[in-house]
Amino acid sequence: MKRIGFIGLGIMGKPMARNLLKKGYALTVYDIRPDPVADLVAAGASSAASCADVAGQTDLVITMLPNTPEVKNAVLGNGGVLEGARPGLLLVDMSSIAPLASQDIAARCSEKDVVMLDAPVSGGEPKAIEGTLAIMVGGPEDAFEQARPVLSCMGSSVTRVGDIGSGNVAKLANQIIVALNIAAMSEAMVLAARSGVSPEKVYQAIRGGLAGSTVLDAKMPLVLKGNFKPGFRIELHIKDLRNALDTAHDLGVPLPLSSSVMEILQALRADGHQKEDHGGIIQFYEKLAHVQVRSGT
Amino acid sequence: MKRIGFIGLGIMGKPMARNLLKKGYALTVYDIRPDPVADLVAAGASSAASCADVAGQTDLVITMLPNTPEVKNAVLGNGGVLEGARPGLLLVDMSSIAPLASQDIAARCSEKDVVMLDAPVSGGEPKAIEGTLAIMVGGPEDAFEQARPVLSCMGSSVTRVGDIGSGNVAKLANQIIVALNIAAMSEAMVLAARSGVSPEKVYQAIRGGLAGSTVLDAKMPLVLKGNFKPGFRIELHIKDLRNALDTAHDLGVPLPLSSSVMEILQALRADGHQKEDHGGIIQFYEKLAHVQVRSGT
Repeated sequence: MKRIGFIGLGIMGKPMARNLLKKGYALTVYDIRPDPVADLVAAGASSAASCADVAGQTDLVITMLPNTPEVKNAVLGNGGVLEGARPGLLLVDMSSIAPLASQDIAARCSEKDVVMLDAPVSGGEPKAIEGTLAIMVGGPEDAFEQARPVLSCMGSSVTRVGDIGSGNVAKLANQIIVALNIAAMSEAMVLAARSGVSPEKVYQAIRGGLAGSTVLDAKMPLVLKGNFKPGFRIELHIKDLRNALDTAHDLGVPLPLSSSVMEILQALRADGHQKEDHGGIIQFYEKLAHVQVRSGT
Repeated sequence: MKRIGFIGLGIMGKPMARNLLKKGYALTVYDIRPDPVADLVAAGASSAASCADVAGQTDLVITMLPNTPEVKNAVLGNGGVLEGARPGLLLVDMSSIAPLASQDIAARCSEKDVVMLDAPVSGGEPKAIEGTLAIMVGGPEDAFEQARPVLSCMGSSVTRVGDIGSGNVAKLANQIIVALNIAAMSEAMVLAARSGVSPEKVYQAIRGGLAGSTVLDAKMPLVLKGNFKPGFRIELHIKDLRNALDTAHDLGVPLPLSSSVMEILQALRADGHQKEDHGGIIQFYEKLAHVQVRSGT
């Protein structure tokens, strides 16, 4: 792989691009904002004038963008990747978008002999910086093998789940479980607090059993401190659950609990909590039940 | 502790009582069914004619019964523990019952100078046999210290959570989280299956991240085999969630997701699944979405 393009230098994309530079890859970057581009150029990257320009100079293009419309625009739009792409370009979309959108974009790419993988990530900014993201990949096996050394610079777990769109299906599954596990913890701990029992002691008594989870161990210590600094923002979890529910409803799959937790996230956004960590889901319950789940309550 | 009484020799109580005998405790047992009593007598226990009779012969009485009414009857009813108890008797109720009922029963006990602990367990029959249950205890600290060596014969984790009723609050918190984590796994995996993506691959891709949980690792391998042998039966989880919802509603705590998962359990019972493992919650979703989450789908 001679030259890599990177489009989208946000909170996640910027440290991911930096890790590719550190491993010695020649990198051409693009973002609509000049500041992160200047930072990456200072670190050794080249800049390009457009997404098409990135594609024209590189063999593998990574996109790391907020959601489906931004990815469609960057790939299929005016001045997009497909305008500049030479046949044989490999496009790796690491954004978290709707799986059906990944399939649509990949179909448009194949008309121009561009192969696409969807490769969304889990782990947030700290793991993006460390290069230890979990990367869930969908797309052809040979393209996966071609991209794997590049992806391994950014993630410690790189798993091919299946055909194009599968990476985003795994990501949606992940986000459904995380949101509901946080809500489960919240219902349990608000009940404990209102019963006059220490949520911290309940946490210690149950964490080693069947109720144990990564969510419980990651979020309870923060909840007990009333610390809802992100982490992973509620507004981003809303985006992911919207994609999950849209995908499910397109397929005729009812998701009653995911739909309820979406409404809880909407209530938190209406209350101004959208920039807080998704562990802040517990605040919906605290308000409903007039109790606080903190150490000492 | 000279002599221990054990009332309730069911699936859980019988192996728990056996573990006390193995550790050399003198044991007096009672059950309404003659067979398990005969088994324990053959293993070295004495039998008694009634709950009152057990209490009259012992210093510490353990009850391990299905639910609140059985415990109230065994302790407060005709021929119950309080009829035979000498002042200073320690009653350890290891049944999973409503926390407010534990508090009521303890108040009645204290009128007769009987001290009570609530000490429900988690781990099921295999851990009852091994003596490695998780035991969550509520009640006075000195009574807890007195009972701890006895409880340690039956459990590997013995945690005092707080005052009387706290053990059952922790148990309800545990059961809320377990039910919802199973439902979360189910929604995620049914979506994956209907998207044409292998649930097994999705499981492998996400288990190491924030979506990881003891439920996921304990139940997904069984779900992938279509194995819903209990384990922990749906009908028992219904009992626990009923206690959770009753307790929450007595306190004015809304539990919208626990209430939804209760309705899912009710639907499974209506369909004849009540004797199956609670991992079978996924069958509700499989039926709704017309898909099976099994290896190879």
